[in-house]
Amino acid sequence: MLTDMYQITMVFAYWKQKRHEDRAIFELFFRKTPFKGEFAIMAGVDEVLKYIAHFRFTEEELTYLRKQIPHAEEDFFVWLGNLDCSAVKVYALPDGTTCFGKEPLIRVEGPLAIGQLLETTLLNLINYPSLIATNAARHRLAVGPDKVLFEFGLRRAQGPDGAMSAAKYSYLGGFDGTSNVLAGHLLGITISGTHAHAYVQSYVSLDNLQTPFLNGQNLVEKALAYRSALGFSESNLGEFAAFVAYAQSWPDNFLCLVDTYDTLNSGVPNFLSVALALHDLGYAPLGVRLDSGDLAYLSKRIRAWFTEVATTHARPSFATLRIVASNDINEDVLYALSKQGHSIDTFGVGTHLVTCQAQPALGCVYKLVEIDGQPRIKLSNEVEKVTLPSRKNLYRFFNEAGVALVDYMDKDGEAAPKPGQRLLCRHPFDSKKRAYVTPATIVPLLKLVWDGRAGGIQPGALRTLEESRAHVLGQLKGIREDVLRHINPTPYKVSVSEELHALLHQLWEMNAPVGQL
Amino acid sequence: MLTDMYQITMVFAYWKQKRHEDRAIFELFFRKTPFKGEFAIMAGVDEVLKYIAHFRFTEEELTYLRKQIPHAEEDFFVWLGNLDCSAVKVYALPDGTTCFGKEPLIRVEGPLAIGQLLETTLLNLINYPSLIATNAARHRLAVGPDKVLFEFGLRRAQGPDGAMSAAKYSYLGGFDGTSNVLAGHLLGITISGTHAHAYVQSYVSLDNLQTPFLNGQNLVEKALAYRSALGFSESNLGEFAAFVAYAQSWPDNFLCLVDTYDTLNSGVPNFLSVALALHDLGYAPLGVRLDSGDLAYLSKRIRAWFTEVATTHARPSFATLRIVASNDINEDVLYALSKQGHSIDTFGVGTHLVTCQAQPALGCVYKLVEIDGQPRIKLSNEVEKVTLPSRKNLYRFFNEAGVALVDYMDKDGEAAPKPGQRLLCRHPFDSKKRAYVTPATIVPLLKLVWDGRAGGIQPGALRTLEESRAHVLGQLKGIREDVLRHINPTPYKVSVSEELHALLHQLWEMNAPVGQL
Repeated sequence: MLTDMYQITMVFAYWKQKRHEDRAIFELFFRKTPFKGEFAIMAGVDEVLKYIAHFRFTEEELTYLRKQIPHAEEDFFVWLGNLDCSAVKVYALPDGTTCFGKEPLIRVEGPLAIGQLLETTLLNLINYPSLIATNAARHRLAVGPDKVLFEFGLRRAQGPDGAMSAAKYSYLGGFDGTSNVLAGHLLGITISGTHAHAYVQSYVSLDNLQTPFLNGQNLVEKALAYRSALGFSESNLGEFAAFVAYAQSWPDNFLCLVDTYDTLNSGVPNFLSVALALHDLGYAPLGVRLDSGDLAYLSKRIRAWFTEVATTHARPSFATLRIVASNDINEDVLYALSKQGHSIDTFGVGTHLVTCQAQPALGCVYKLVEIDGQPRIKLSNEVEKVTLPSRKNLYRFFNEAGVALVDYMDKDGEAAPKPGQRLLCRHPFDSKKRAYVTPATIVPLLKLVWDGRAGGIQPGALRTLEESRAHVLGQLKGIREDVLRHINPTPYKVSVSEELHALLHQLWEMNAPVGQL
Repeated sequence: MLTDMYQITMVFAYWKQKRHEDRAIFELFFRKTPFKGEFAIMAGVDEVLKYIAHFRFTEEELTYLRKQIPHAEEDFFVWLGNLDCSAVKVYALPDGTTCFGKEPLIRVEGPLAIGQLLETTLLNLINYPSLIATNAARHRLAVGPDKVLFEFGLRRAQGPDGAMSAAKYSYLGGFDGTSNVLAGHLLGITISGTHAHAYVQSYVSLDNLQTPFLNGQNLVEKALAYRSALGFSESNLGEFAAFVAYAQSWPDNFLCLVDTYDTLNSGVPNFLSVALALHDLGYAPLGVRLDSGDLAYLSKRIRAWFTEVATTHARPSFATLRIVASNDINEDVLYALSKQGHSIDTFGVGTHLVTCQAQPALGCVYKLVEIDGQPRIKLSNEVEKVTLPSRKNLYRFFNEAGVALVDYMDKDGEAAPKPGQRLLCRHPFDSKKRAYVTPATIVPLLKLVWDGRAGGIQPGALRTLEESRAHVLGQLKGIREDVLRHINPTPYKVSVSEELHALLHQLWEMNAPVGQL
C-alpha cells in the first residue's frame, strides 16, 4: 500500500484488458550521479528483498481500495488479494557496489501487473539508502581512512525512519558509528555520545555536586588546585562542577563538550583541570568535543595546549587526547579543514549527512524496457531522459591492475564479452563517441537476488551490513582516483554494445513522430 | 530508544549525582525561519503527544543498555525501567500555528532526567513535520487558493516514513491530496493517480487491445475516425491503444499522461481522439497530465487546442478539460509559471516538496532554560546562538484589524500584558532596537497539551489533521503579506519584555569569562 495510486489505477486497467500476466521487464536506474560527483553506491537491496518476500494486500487494505474504485468488479479484488511475488525474478547490484548513471541497478521480471505495483516502493527503498551511502562514502574519501566518522543526525533527519536509514546506510558507506541508540540496538552499529550543553548548564556552581570525592579521593580539591596552578581563574565554575560530576560518573569515558560558555577561556581550562586530577586517580581521560567556532583554529590551539601540558606535567598521553568536532560539518568543510590543517581526530556529522543537504534526493526511476519479448523505449524532449530498451546485461571491464575501465551493457542474447577480446564500447546517445576496449577481467554486476519459483531470496543475496560496508571499501579501490575526485571529477564511461546501440536508435526513430513546424 | 546515546550518558550522570529529579525546564525552538522566508508552520505536536504518552523502556532495551554501560549499577536500570512521563508537563503551539525564530514552540517541564531524555525524539518529531508544513504552505501561497496541489513525492522521500510524514504534513500545510495510497488509507487524505509512462509503453499497437468496444459501441473505430479527421496521422499508435484501453477501464476518470513520445505531436492528439469518442458515448473526459517540457508553453498550447475543439466540435466542456503538471515543480517554478502565464489547473509536486530541497532540515534545538527555579543561559561566539533564559510566556499582539504586530515573550511571574496597554517590546540581543506597542488583542500561544499528573493528553490538544489544516489557513490571514512574501520578506518582530531583556544580559555577563588577548 506504500505506493502511488496510479499503480493501482494502471493495474486495474491491465487486469480489465487481461494484460496483467503479460511478461514484463522493468529496470530501476538513475540518470545522473549525485553530489556533482561521478559515482554512487548502491544500497537498499536488503530492504527490497524483505518487502518482496512479504508483498501482500491485507483484507483491510482491499476494503479501502474497494471504496477508492467503486466501479471495479469484485473479481479484481479477489485477484489482488491473491497476488504475491511468486512469479517474479529480481536481479540487483549487491549493496555496496559502485554504480553509475543509466545502469540498471535492479531488474524486475514477471507479470506486468506485479512489476508495475512494485515500482514506487522499490524506488523509495533504493533512492534514499543509495543516496546516503554515497554521501557517507564521499565523507569517508574526504577524511581518509584514519579519522573516525560518527553519524549525529537523528534530530534533524526526515522522520524517525529517515534517521534509522541514515544511521544504517551511512555506516554501510564507511562511517564508524552513530549517536542513535535504536540503530545501535537493532542494527548492531557502534554508538557513541557524551553530553550536551544542557548538561553543563544544569550545573550552576560547586554546590550542585553531591560529593567532591571519587574512589575516596577529593577530586574537586585536586582539580581546583590544577585550575589555580594553571592560571585558569576565569573559567566558569558551573561548567567546572559539571565536568567534575561527569568524571565521577564516567571516569573511564571522560570526554567533555567545551563550548558552552567559552571554549578557550573556560571549557578547555576546566577540562584540563579535571582531566589532570582524574589522571592522578589512575584514569585515562579521553578528550574534548567542539560544537561551535573555528574548528581548524580551535583544534590546533587545543592540541598545542594538550602537547604543552603533556610535557610540563609529564603526562605523555595528554598529547594524544582526542579532539571531536561536530558543528555543521559537511564534505566541503572536511576538505577545507584538511587544506587549512587541523588537529581533529573524530568528526560527528549530522544534518548535512542525513538530509543530504547538497542534494536531498537521488533521482532513481523505474522504466518498462520489455514487454512480451518486445523491447520498449520511452522518449523525451530531453535526450538524457530517453530510456535504454530491452533486457540488458551489465558488465564492468577492468585492466590488468584491477582498475575499472568502463561499464558495458549488452542486449540479452548477445554472446557474453570475454576477457582479452577487443570490444567496441559505444556511448548510448552520442554516436560519435566510441572506443575499443580489451578488458583483462570482466565482472557481471547484476545478480539474481529473488526468484519466486525457486525459493524466493537467493543464497548470498541478503548480505550483512558489515559485508556490504567492506564491499564499498573494496569497490572504491577499483575506481580511478580522478573519477572519485571531490570537484570536477572525470566522468566514468557507461557504454553499450553495438547491437544495443542499433536497437536503441531504431526504436527511437520508429516511435518518435516526425514533428511539424 | 530513538535517541542519541549522549542522553543516556547524561542521564546516568544525573542519576549518579542524584540530580535526576531536579525540576528542569527545556524549550524547543529554531533560530532562523526556513526557505529564506520569515515564517514557519508548527507541526508534529500530535506525534509528540503519542510518543510522550507511550514513553517507556522495555526489558529488551534495558538489556541492550546494560551492555553499553557495564559499569552502571543495576539500580540505575531499575529506575530507568520505571520511568515514564507522569511527572512531566508539556506546553506547545497547536499544530498549524504560524511561528518565528527564537520562540519556544514546545516547553517541557519536569524532572531533569526525563526532560533530557525527550530531547532528541521531540526534535526529530517536530523538525521535519514543521519544515514540510511550512514548505507546503509556501507552495500554497505561490499558487493561490484556487489551484489544486497534490503531493507526488513518495518515491523520492527519505525513507518510507519520510514519505508518510510528507503526505500528512503537506496536507496540513495546505495541499489537497497525495498520490500515496497508504497515506490515504491511514490518514484519510484524498488520493489521486492516473497512469505512468510504463503503461503507455506497454502498448505496442492496436493488437494489444482485447476489444475495441466500450458498452457495446466501437470506441476504437470512433476514436480512429477523430484521429483521421483532425489530421493526427503521425500520432503513436501504441500510445493511442493505451489511451483507448485506459478509457475502457476508467471511462469516468479519463486523464492521460501525454508526454511518453511527443506531447504535441502524439500525446494530445491521441488524447483528443479518444476523448471525443468517449464523450460521444456519454462520458466526461477529465484531461491530461504533463511530466516534461516547457509547462507554461505546452499548457497554453493545449488549452488553446482544447478551446478550439470545444468550439469546432460543439463540446463546451472540452474548454475546461483539466491540465495537470508534474515535472520537477518547486516554489520558484510556481512563481515563474504565474509570471509567465500558464493554463495548468493542478500541480503534482514531488521531490522538491517532500525532501524540502531548498532547505532539507529545520534547525530546531532543545535547550535548558531553567533548573530548580534558576534561569540558565547557553552562550556562544555566535550571538544568534545565545539562548533566552527562564520559563517564558509567548504572546502574539494584534492590531484592531486582526493583523499580527509583534510576538512578545515575558518572564514567568511578570504581570500578563493587557490589550490597550502600551508595552515596551525589546529586541532580545540588540539593545538599540525597541518599540512601544499597544495591542488591540493579545493571544497567548503556548497551550498545556500534556500533564502527566492530570490525565495526560489535555482536552483539545490532539487536533485532527483537518482542524490543523484549517488553522494554517486562518493563521496566515493574520500575518502581513510582506512577511509572507516569497523573496526578501519583511522580518516579523519577535520581542522580549524589559525584565526578560535585563535577565538575559545579566546572565550573559555573569557566565561569560572575560577573554584575554
